[in-house]
Amino acid sequence: MTSPAATPAYRRLSVEERRTQLLGAALSLFAHRAPEDVSVDDVAEAAGVSRPLVYRYFPGGKQQLYEAALRSAADELELCFAEAQSGPLTRRLTRALDRYLAFVDEHDAGFSALLQGGSVAETSRTTAIVDEVRRAAAEQILVHLRVEQPGPRLRMMVRTWIAAVEAASLIWLDEDKQPALPELRDWLVDHLVALLTATAATDEQTAAVVRGALAHEPVEGPAGVLARRVIPVVSEAGHLL
Amino acid sequence: MTSPAATPAYRRLSVEERRTQLLGAALSLFAHRAPEDVSVDDVAEAAGVSRPLVYRYFPGGKQQLYEAALRSAADELELCFAEAQSGPLTRRLTRALDRYLAFVDEHDAGFSALLQGGSVAETSRTTAIVDEVRRAAAEQILVHLRVEQPGPRLRMMVRTWIAAVEAASLIWLDEDKQPALPELRDWLVDHLVALLTATAATDEQTAAVVRGALAHEPVEGPAGVLARRVIPVVSEAGHLL
Repeated sequence: MTSPAATPAYRRLSVEERRTQLLGAALSLFAHRAPEDVSVDDVAEAAGVSRPLVYRYFPGGKQQLYEAALRSAADELELCFAEAQSGPLTRRLTRALDRYLAFVDEHDAGFSALLQGGSVAETSRTTAIVDEVRRAAAEQILVHLRVEQPGPRLRMMVRTWIAAVEAASLIWLDEDKQPALPELRDWLVDHLVALLTATAATDEQTAAVVRGALAHEPVEGPAGVLARRVIPVVSEAGHLL
Repeated sequence: MTSPAATPAYRRLSVEERRTQLLGAALSLFAHRAPEDVSVDDVAEAAGVSRPLVYRYFPGGKQQLYEAALRSAADELELCFAEAQSGPLTRRLTRALDRYLAFVDEHDAGFSALLQGGSVAETSRTTAIVDEVRRAAAEQILVHLRVEQPGPRLRMMVRTWIAAVEAASLIWLDEDKQPALPELRDWLVDHLVALLTATAATDEQTAAVVRGALAHEPVEGPAGVLARRVIPVVSEAGHLL
């Protein structure tokens, strides 16, 4: 089913444009299917080109296409947590999580296949790309916490929260994208606020971060709402104070 | 270097005993090395038998040995969170985490290789075994929370905490087993208490769990210590209340 317009377009693309077009086709296939369910033929068909042409640009075939698509998705993901360093911490986190969760929503099956392990396309190279995204996300969060030299406890805390966000994203996809994204995002913000506060109990650096961050939180923001909702629940445990 | 005593022992083992012996040898090799760094020859040498004998019991060679060793480790891991349903929640969690972290400590390199992805021995079968352990751990935690019909929010919360415990274990191995295990374990207990409390703010079922659990916490237990340490940190944010 080649339209008359397809052939001239086929001839006119430059090398770079063609590569970008093939990668775009691969990326959108890998976003919604596991790598085992995508073939070079699928990519050729989606791009409206021949199979040999795909191999001319990607001699490594599917694995090379997958890694290039992953590299491109990783670049996009790394930008999710980049955010101007102004305003309350929870407002910045909310915006970063909105971008991250929109990415998860758009790359649903591919995101699951990538992170659930055991995929045929998984290699030490793909694992390294995923690890780099996690490290970049942790670095960005530490910047938002205004910490220049994070100690081991604070670093571990941020990295475990990143792992929790990943796990929650996979569960969300597994549960047919329930609850609605804003509800999941608010809960993940509360999760980090709670984790920061609990870690502040035994780590002086984290305590300083919490004091600094709470001072800038608005009364109607997530930290205020969380505090006012938590107090009635824990107030019955007065024997612990 | 075969000792005179080795040959008779070699002949006297029953089929089941021999299988158990080979599996034991494989398990201790896979505990401390990545699967790519263990060969059938290594297993034969560790068990003091010939390479063909290993293949007679495990015709699938290394992959079969790896999956059998993993199955056996998974059974052990699933028992970590099983604990009598009496006493304060944090005391039960502390004991369960002590067992889990002792397992991580004993299976260091193998635990990392298994969970970090990209291993040559990783297949959909090994991934399924790991997922089963995670699910079993989550079930056990829900039993400790005395919840028979957990809603989606509480299930997601418990599963994200399990993911955080796994991430913290990998970071701990990566950082040369720092901090000391009791410190890591106490922080992971605080982490769950904080996560329960934050989730209680927006989920009625979790709020009931928190009320029930806190009522049984002793004043000198982890929840009491955490509450008394957190109050001075957050008390400066009076504008949020």
